[in-house]
Amino acid sequence: MNLVENDLLVKSKIKSDAYELRNKLINRFIEVRKLSLKLVSSLEVEDFVIQSMQDVSPTKWHLAHTTWFFEAFILHKAVPNYESIHPLYSYLFNSYYVQMGERWTRNQRGWLSRPTVKEIYQYRNHVDNSMIEFLINCSEDELKKYVSVVEIGLNHEQQHQELILTDIKHVLSINPLHPVYYKKIEEYKTGINQINWVEFAGGITEIGNEGKEFCYDNETPKHKTYIQPFAIADRLITNGEYLEFIESGGYEETTLWLSDGWALVEAEKWKALLYWEKKDGEWFYFTLNGFRRINPDEPVCHVSYYEAEAFAEWKGARLPTEAEWELAADNLKYEGNFVDDENFHPVPLSSSDNKLKQMYGDVWEWTGSAYLPYPGFKPLPGALGEYNGKFMSGQMVLKGGSCATSKSHIRKTYRNFFPPQSRWQFMGIRLAKNI
Amino acid sequence: MNLVENDLLVKSKIKSDAYELRNKLINRFIEVRKLSLKLVSSLEVEDFVIQSMQDVSPTKWHLAHTTWFFEAFILHKAVPNYESIHPLYSYLFNSYYVQMGERWTRNQRGWLSRPTVKEIYQYRNHVDNSMIEFLINCSEDELKKYVSVVEIGLNHEQQHQELILTDIKHVLSINPLHPVYYKKIEEYKTGINQINWVEFAGGITEIGNEGKEFCYDNETPKHKTYIQPFAIADRLITNGEYLEFIESGGYEETTLWLSDGWALVEAEKWKALLYWEKKDGEWFYFTLNGFRRINPDEPVCHVSYYEAEAFAEWKGARLPTEAEWELAADNLKYEGNFVDDENFHPVPLSSSDNKLKQMYGDVWEWTGSAYLPYPGFKPLPGALGEYNGKFMSGQMVLKGGSCATSKSHIRKTYRNFFPPQSRWQFMGIRLAKNI
Amino acid sequence: MNLVENDLLVKSKIKSDAYELRNKLINRFIEVRKLSLKLVSSLEVEDFVIQSMQDVSPTKWHLAHTTWFFEAFILHKAVPNYESIHPLYSYLFNSYYVQMGERWTRNQRGWLSRPTVKEIYQYRNHVDNSMIEFLINCSEDELKKYVSVVEIGLNHEQQHQELILTDIKHVLSINPLHPVYYKKIEEYKTGINQINWVEFAGGITEIGNEGKEFCYDNETPKHKTYIQPFAIADRLITNGEYLEFIESGGYEETTLWLSDGWALVEAEKWKALLYWEKKDGEWFYFTLNGFRRINPDEPVCHVSYYEAEAFAEWKGARLPTEAEWELAADNLKYEGNFVDDENFHPVPLSSSDNKLKQMYGDVWEWTGSAYLPYPGFKPLPGALGEYNGKFMSGQMVLKGGSCATSKSHIRKTYRNFFPPQSRWQFMGIRLAKNI
Amino acid sequence: MNLVENDLLVKSKIKSDAYELRNKLINRFIEVRKLSLKLVSSLEVEDFVIQSMQDVSPTKWHLAHTTWFFEAFILHKAVPNYESIHPLYSYLFNSYYVQMGERWTRNQRGWLSRPTVKEIYQYRNHVDNSMIEFLINCSEDELKKYVSVVEIGLNHEQQHQELILTDIKHVLSINPLHPVYYKKIEEYKTGINQINWVEFAGGITEIGNEGKEFCYDNETPKHKTYIQPFAIADRLITNGEYLEFIESGGYEETTLWLSDGWALVEAEKWKALLYWEKKDGEWFYFTLNGFRRINPDEPVCHVSYYEAEAFAEWKGARLPTEAEWELAADNLKYEGNFVDDENFHPVPLSSSDNKLKQMYGDVWEWTGSAYLPYPGFKPLPGALGEYNGKFMSGQMVLKGGSCATSKSHIRKTYRNFFPPQSRWQFMGIRLAKNI
Repeated sequence: MNLVENDLLVKSKIKSDAYELRNKLINRFIEVRKLSLKLVSSLEVEDFVIQSMQDVSPTKWHLAHTTWFFEAFILHKAVPNYESIHPLYSYLFNSYYVQMGERWTRNQRGWLSRPTVKEIYQYRNHVDNSMIEFLINCSEDELKKYVSVVEIGLNHEQQHQELILTDIKHVLSINPLHPVYYKKIEEYKTGINQINWVEFAGGITEIGNEGKEFCYDNETPKHKTYIQPFAIADRLITNGEYLEFIESGGYEETTLWLSDGWALVEAEKWKALLYWEKKDGEWFYFTLNGFRRINPDEPVCHVSYYEAEAFAEWKGARLPTEAEWELAADNLKYEGNFVDDENFHPVPLSSSDNKLKQMYGDVWEWTGSAYLPYPGFKPLPGALGEYNGKFMSGQMVLKGGSCATSKSHIRKTYRNFFPPQSRWQFMGIRLAKNI
Repeated sequence: MNLVENDLLVKSKIKSDAYELRNKLINRFIEVRKLSLKLVSSLEVEDFVIQSMQDVSPTKWHLAHTTWFFEAFILHKAVPNYESIHPLYSYLFNSYYVQMGERWTRNQRGWLSRPTVKEIYQYRNHVDNSMIEFLINCSEDELKKYVSVVEIGLNHEQQHQELILTDIKHVLSINPLHPVYYKKIEEYKTGINQINWVEFAGGITEIGNEGKEFCYDNETPKHKTYIQPFAIADRLITNGEYLEFIESGGYEETTLWLSDGWALVEAEKWKALLYWEKKDGEWFYFTLNGFRRINPDEPVCHVSYYEAEAFAEWKGARLPTEAEWELAADNLKYEGNFVDDENFHPVPLSSSDNKLKQMYGDVWEWTGSAYLPYPGFKPLPGALGEYNGKFMSGQMVLKGGSCATSKSHIRKTYRNFFPPQSRWQFMGIRLAKNI
Repeated sequence: MNLVENDLLVKSKIKSDAYELRNKLINRFIEVRKLSLKLVSSLEVEDFVIQSMQDVSPTKWHLAHTTWFFEAFILHKAVPNYESIHPLYSYLFNSYYVQMGERWTRNQRGWLSRPTVKEIYQYRNHVDNSMIEFLINCSEDELKKYVSVVEIGLNHEQQHQELILTDIKHVLSINPLHPVYYKKIEEYKTGINQINWVEFAGGITEIGNEGKEFCYDNETPKHKTYIQPFAIADRLITNGEYLEFIESGGYEETTLWLSDGWALVEAEKWKALLYWEKKDGEWFYFTLNGFRRINPDEPVCHVSYYEAEAFAEWKGARLPTEAEWELAADNLKYEGNFVDDENFHPVPLSSSDNKLKQMYGDVWEWTGSAYLPYPGFKPLPGALGEYNGKFMSGQMVLKGGSCATSKSHIRKTYRNFFPPQSRWQFMGIRLAKNI
Repeated sequence: MNLVENDLLVKSKIKSDAYELRNKLINRFIEVRKLSLKLVSSLEVEDFVIQSMQDVSPTKWHLAHTTWFFEAFILHKAVPNYESIHPLYSYLFNSYYVQMGERWTRNQRGWLSRPTVKEIYQYRNHVDNSMIEFLINCSEDELKKYVSVVEIGLNHEQQHQELILTDIKHVLSINPLHPVYYKKIEEYKTGINQINWVEFAGGITEIGNEGKEFCYDNETPKHKTYIQPFAIADRLITNGEYLEFIESGGYEETTLWLSDGWALVEAEKWKALLYWEKKDGEWFYFTLNGFRRINPDEPVCHVSYYEAEAFAEWKGARLPTEAEWELAADNLKYEGNFVDDENFHPVPLSSSDNKLKQMYGDVWEWTGSAYLPYPGFKPLPGALGEYNGKFMSGQMVLKGGSCATSKSHIRKTYRNFFPPQSRWQFMGIRLAKNI
């Protein structure tokens, strides 16, 4: 059964008890699973294999790993006599789930020519079919038991869809032939307004998620926190503004940088953002839409925390805290430039009724908050508890999603987190300041 | 003029205007500077030279660097025609003060045989004499201008006195001959009471320092924060309790550890604390008082954040936040086992009127709070602003001081900070939990 | 024009002057170029991309690099208006020919997904057609000028054909799925005779190549050398004999090893040969014919110099010098197990009229001679002089070719060379001793 | 008993049987052991401790290790109830003698502050006294049994005396204070004659040592070899000549260098020799006589094999082989600038009756021969066999000794060996060429 062609056929077979839940879940399952294949449809077979740095995973690994998730956490548990297509796939495509057994070393993911891309598509098909059959036919009790695991699996796949884009961008970027992932012609805008500072009085406020709808455990519990009065910028920082920072010597001025950030700038000889390159006096960048002249009006992207923090310092401002960001995001209309829009790149600010613009989509926004469990946090039990509850030290929180994020994946309380040196994700800057 | 022998002589020469301030400052200057030499008086010349790992600096470097501070920030600025004893010392003994010029690479501090220890003593003498002469004779205006810099310099030296002890402990510890820094005979105690959990209601509270008395800039400003209800242990975790963690397999149990912590445990093959060693079925440790059988009743020491966090997890508890710790420390009698007590090692709990015991001294207490600037923080201007305002990401806050800290150096609002993997400092564990 | 299908067509177009030379050269050109494609015909596209360690190059790189050679050294020089298929290919597929311009970093060859395998086939076709056209039509003068360059290019490609096999073997070997390159069923032989020691009186002898027929410059000049009396084994060491070395503790016995060899054994935890693996008490190895139980009668293969030397020491023997090997190889019938035989693996000794057996093919034989220029050596001028004349220190000479070598590529005076730790080539052991 | 003051006393106690042998051996023992202390007499205690790179050992380690040799190989075996001064010294001061037990890791020799320098002097005294007592009183049989081991021990100490000088030179060189080891005022010479090329007809010749007098096992056996006709330079290459190589772009010209040499030049950014530094347009070097302007007439020193080879290539010449050097050294008067002359630095050529000048002393001369065992070589049995018989691959032979070598230590057949990148020894260049 091929996912793309047989939606109707599926619908006709769904068991009648809990029909609506089954129907909705199967639809969402098909939709999410299809998107993964759509996102890679313009790639050559060779592109699926490359691991261009340790943070990057090969595209085919993403396709297999997200598939393994449904096998490991649902099919092997719920379907008697379920057989995997190959006994070693579980070993090859487990990632960091220590509790799920031994794993193939992360930094050797780019050494595996087999299974081939074709075989991984067969693997996906096998698991898709088994999953849909399961969702069509299982008892209502089982359905209720596994509905949240399916939801986690689909959100997990959405996260990897974002990684597929960020990783393949890196893979293509290091190739001197400058391959184009997706061609999109685009007019340059002619200007962006000054930042407006939107003020908030602060005080005791509640942040985090009650967990009534699906969310990751790291967003819980909803809890009180005290916020000082602050102002936050009504839009993202642009390439043009970041260029001023570069041209005014930002990468040479020690005092702007965090101590460990500066050590990195020196060690890695950072002179500009990842993917930026100066040729004959003009600035270019590598994008999924090709190698192009930098558009000054787009939100700046691929910024590390260190760079975001130094830029803010240079501007006499700072990054918002996670709590400030959540407070500021209250009562906004949910809109933005998501993966659904197929830009695969941030776009210049367009008009909006929201007081704060570009809060969702375009680029993940660095906050000045360290990624730590919320007061009263309890992880999920078992291996799924490793999933997002696997806290680590030294990472910073990002909010709001990016142009590589699915619109159905993100929400106000969503907590993304990366080490301060990371920049290959679609990450950008919104400023805040004390008032 | 030798610091030890000429206190009276100094006193007789002090200028009459602002006599009390001068007198007090000179006395404190002499007292702090003397302690550095006292702390190294039992060492051999060869001990002063070694850098046994990158974190460690040679003892003679500490002695010179603390001296350089007074030269760079006071004498060269305030004393016309002041001449340093050698033009290269400033290059050799600057540390991370980027604004003060080029520096000798940190990880090559152990490659310098010259200047000799004797020459560094001469350097100290030269600077001490110049400083005292300056404090005796300068105008009242200048005195007022530099009094806070002197205070920073002395606090800076007190920090390095602590580092002298932690670093020389490491240097001696890796020597198979087990040299003894200081011989202290000690009776083993026979038992420690169960932990009592002291409860706090939380709510809005104020933490941080107003800055009326001397404090580091990173302690400011005093600001409001919201604290959930919590309970905190009335004493430190002991060696005996930590031993149970080890013996019950704590170092093999992935799920207890932070993700990056576990990666380190595996990479470094950690099986116990730094300085701990099992010989013929019994546990020993290297201490400044010699290589000894572990005393189960002493506060556990040389614990990394990762180990503290995993231990807390194992106990079903957690580490206190910085704000919780400060709230809990309110209204306690200021007492503890400091460097002034010359134990150079944590000691078992003795009776105290305080509800919370061992809050100061013995061991620095890890908190679960990342080291970030307080809301509204403003660093000192210029190079001194690099001093503690030099924030870095990925470090955690520690509170309360240790057996290597001077009693006159520490206070409730003091913020120490180290990376989560560090363990060569005198660091330990106090637990907290939600209620 | 496709190389495989159009031999006859080519023949009909050859210019009449120097017809025989053209004909012979074109035939050889077609034959060698075809073999490269034949050797990779069983691979999946994904296999062409992987660089599984720094020594290994991706298969597609080999196919492109050997093609680049003809472009750089012939077409761009001899054919006016010759156009390459892409301006960057020269940058991407140059290897270490420093004189030919900037190069893509060697250890990042596995990061390039583009050009695709298909595009590289097109590149080969383009160059093949241009080369054949050139050889058909060029003037006789030009033909004579370039004939030796063509010959070098074809020998260069033959070397890379050997590397394609050794590299793809490594790529497939690290894959837990154990892909099979080429399935060949094989009977196990039942025994091999004891080694016979063939004695040589030595004295003054001549080694090296006069250079009348094609040879590499490093084989010249032919020169006198003095050889002490010696004996040399009449056959190669077998897997069975090497297994005894392992089982008797050879990898634990320091005194058998060269000093730097032992350091490597300890650092890399070597316990057996590359590709060998003990499972449930039995020894297996990965071969191009699959993952199989070790055949004790085959010549041992994938032996580093360190292991060969330690084995010889353990046997109370030594490795032959290069001069001894050449003297011993005089007057033998030229026979062996070459790539032409399509075993892609060493085979057990079969009967032969030669007094010394297995001297050619099967495995390269380590000598105890360092790779240094012969007395009176003069490298070729220009970039081609870099080719084999590019001496390096610390490498050892190997003789005789392997099961991955073309029969038309090797000869008695051929000097192969590798660092002592290398073992991914088809390398084995023949013993010698003093008499 | 102090070695310096009690020679007469010793003499009076020597047993009468084999008096002459005992007397001679004791005298030589005292002489060599005294020299080690004399060589370090100008150092500060701190200098003894430093390991400034992995190749370097701390001076105090050399003093202790050479002492340990006599303990391990003589006193512990021959003297009943001999007691070492400390049970762990054997562990700390063994070097690579794997057969003598576990060792303290080489690259951590600079981490040991204890035993102190004073304690190591006491250790030397203890062993000296025990050795002398043993040599005075042992039976004639024992004396004969151990005489060659004493001789190896003394030669071993002479090698380490050379290392003490080369290592302390490195330690002092990296110190920005430029400490002076030994002040020697020196006039600059005004010129050196052109090189004369001395020709040799070659043919069969014998090299190596018969072993009648003391020699290392790696010099044996004496054996025939065939040498082509060659010419060899009558003097060493000077600083002035090497400077021309630098100034003409030698360090930028790829084609002059061995392939691995060039890789190193690029990786390490070599622009001149070790210890050379250009200041304000003029060249200086660090020497044991201070930091000085380069004397163009001195033999060039601290040259790696790679640099020597590239220089020779640039000159259109080559390095001599080991066999050529030995043949050329026949029948020369034994003279040179040795450690006995207390220059601790090469000196400009002075007049000599020898046809070939500066063959001994000044600088070790790189040959183009790899360090491999001679045909028929048999190592000494047991741990002493590890001593020089411990062959390693990838090292090159050097001949003739240096200004840091004892005159009584070196001879024509002496084989020194170092990796091609080493340059901290006193190593230089003599050219050869084909005729």
